[in-house]
Amino acid sequence: MYYIGIDVGGMTIKAGIVDENGKLYIKDAVPTLPERHYSEIVRDMAELCKSIAAKQGIDITEIAGVGMGIPGTINSKAGVITYSNNINFEKVPIVKEFGKYIKCPVYINNDANAAALGEAKFGSGKGSRDVVFVTLGTGVGTGIITEGILLEGKMGAGAEGGHIALKMGGELCSCGKRGCWEAYASATAIIRQTRKAMELHPESLMNAEAEKEGKVSGRTAFNAAKKGDVAAKKVVDNYIKYVAEGIISMVNLFRPDYVLIGGGISNEGDWLMQKIQRRVNRYSFGGHRNPKVYVRKAVLGNDAGIYGAAALAMKK
Amino acid sequence: MYYIGIDVGGMTIKAGIVDENGKLYIKDAVPTLPERHYSEIVRDMAELCKSIAAKQGIDITEIAGVGMGIPGTINSKAGVITYSNNINFEKVPIVKEFGKYIKCPVYINNDANAAALGEAKFGSGKGSRDVVFVTLGTGVGTGIITEGILLEGKMGAGAEGGHIALKMGGELCSCGKRGCWEAYASATAIIRQTRKAMELHPESLMNAEAEKEGKVSGRTAFNAAKKGDVAAKKVVDNYIKYVAEGIISMVNLFRPDYVLIGGGISNEGDWLMQKIQRRVNRYSFGGHRNPKVYVRKAVLGNDAGIYGAAALAMKK
Repeated sequence: MYYIGIDVGGMTIKAGIVDENGKLYIKDAVPTLPERHYSEIVRDMAELCKSIAAKQGIDITEIAGVGMGIPGTINSKAGVITYSNNINFEKVPIVKEFGKYIKCPVYINNDANAAALGEAKFGSGKGSRDVVFVTLGTGVGTGIITEGILLEGKMGAGAEGGHIALKMGGELCSCGKRGCWEAYASATAIIRQTRKAMELHPESLMNAEAEKEGKVSGRTAFNAAKKGDVAAKKVVDNYIKYVAEGIISMVNLFRPDYVLIGGGISNEGDWLMQKIQRRVNRYSFGGHRNPKVYVRKAVLGNDAGIYGAAALAMKK
Repeated sequence: MYYIGIDVGGMTIKAGIVDENGKLYIKDAVPTLPERHYSEIVRDMAELCKSIAAKQGIDITEIAGVGMGIPGTINSKAGVITYSNNINFEKVPIVKEFGKYIKCPVYINNDANAAALGEAKFGSGKGSRDVVFVTLGTGVGTGIITEGILLEGKMGAGAEGGHIALKMGGELCSCGKRGCWEAYASATAIIRQTRKAMELHPESLMNAEAEKEGKVSGRTAFNAAKKGDVAAKKVVDNYIKYVAEGIISMVNLFRPDYVLIGGGISNEGDWLMQKIQRRVNRYSFGGHRNPKVYVRKAVLGNDAGIYGAAALAMKK
């Protein structure tokens, strides 16, 4: 059967046709232009769906379901976007609105939740019913699948793992609380940590790396550390501890089969995964008595949003 | 229908007959004597069940199911106690063993998980399918019900909320990691915090309170604070912040209807609940945009274990 996954971002709306075996037949994208009224944006989404179906030679009535992954707080049961900062949506009845254009079951969820579902169904967690997905990007996003069920919390306001405590009273987080995991383990956080170390160590290779790149990025400290820079190594070591510490909290709560790591930072790859794995093995509750949790890189990459959104429609 | 709930503790095994409306007909207890082989302990458990049924005039064949709440890591699906520190059980196939004596469906789970289920079914969370239960006792135990499902994690090794991070690198926890919530928010932790403040402030009322009680307890600082003692107030204020901070992590992940608080410290009652509620309202992710989570005292008290264990048998 054919499903359409729509990945709604602040810049671009992507959509693709996926089947239940995880085959992606076609994908395309349109600009979001988020300053518009939601009815126009939703109309574009529907047209994008019709257009990819037509290009693929599939009649729109053959689409068994449409899923949408949307940043923000999503009330999946009501089919309403409670609040999405990135696309300026508040209390938008998107499922009803979309139904004006295409008649088929429509499912919505938070984008990190959708990505978690995509990875569990078609990616690094294939075959597992217990997966924690962590994106290390601008923020720290989490999607949690436990016993095959996507954890959403009341009105979709749960699964905000980026805002569990890491160091109570520590760095100020964008959510207004101090010491959240996100304030230490996001790409934004390692950039801040890198800048601070660069100031303290003007001799560090990080300065040259940043100059070469034209900015301080999530890669700066990693690149300098690989070249043997001591100050950069310290930044990276601490950052890995922060990432692992939050993952250990998640492991102690959910004890999944896999913790899958996505987002820009995950491009550091196996080397990073192994370092995190070692700390998870050592510090998770119960030690060797408890079943091992495997830390892996998420593999669906840029298409994770499409796969995940399509998976939302398949799960029912 | 009649169900039997068995609350297995290190000192005492309690059992009671409960119906699906939460009526407790009869209860009784026997000593655990945990140094014995498990077969003897399980035989005593079965005899206790038969004895309360006989006293109540109920034929044992009328019992629709038996549930057991057991401290430790419990593999509920396999019916095996993976490990229980309190009763020296390791890899004990308790469901099979119990089946030698009484023929009916038998369900086992961790005691905090069972208590959470009991509170959600018959106690402070009655009617809700989304409840986080927190015991503030010797340790910090958590039981989580999300969309009506008891969160267990792989082989029952999840729901260890006491070991999520609070202050990374902070106080050493019994689990071997530093900075766990339990290391700050358990009764054991407030006793440590109280002792430290007593040393720093020999003039504090906490010293007189401890002398009156014959020991430093989880109540010492609370009692002195109520009498206006400044140092005690500081201990209590900090302790409440620790408790609330961990609860906020749980709220951000699970966004339940209720956070229910049990264990010795919860006897401080409404006053304590209100203080925690205020911090939860203020610091939970999304503020007023997200649905409110209510902090309440767990009400089943000493019988929570029996109710909860019986509820395990009802949920199937």
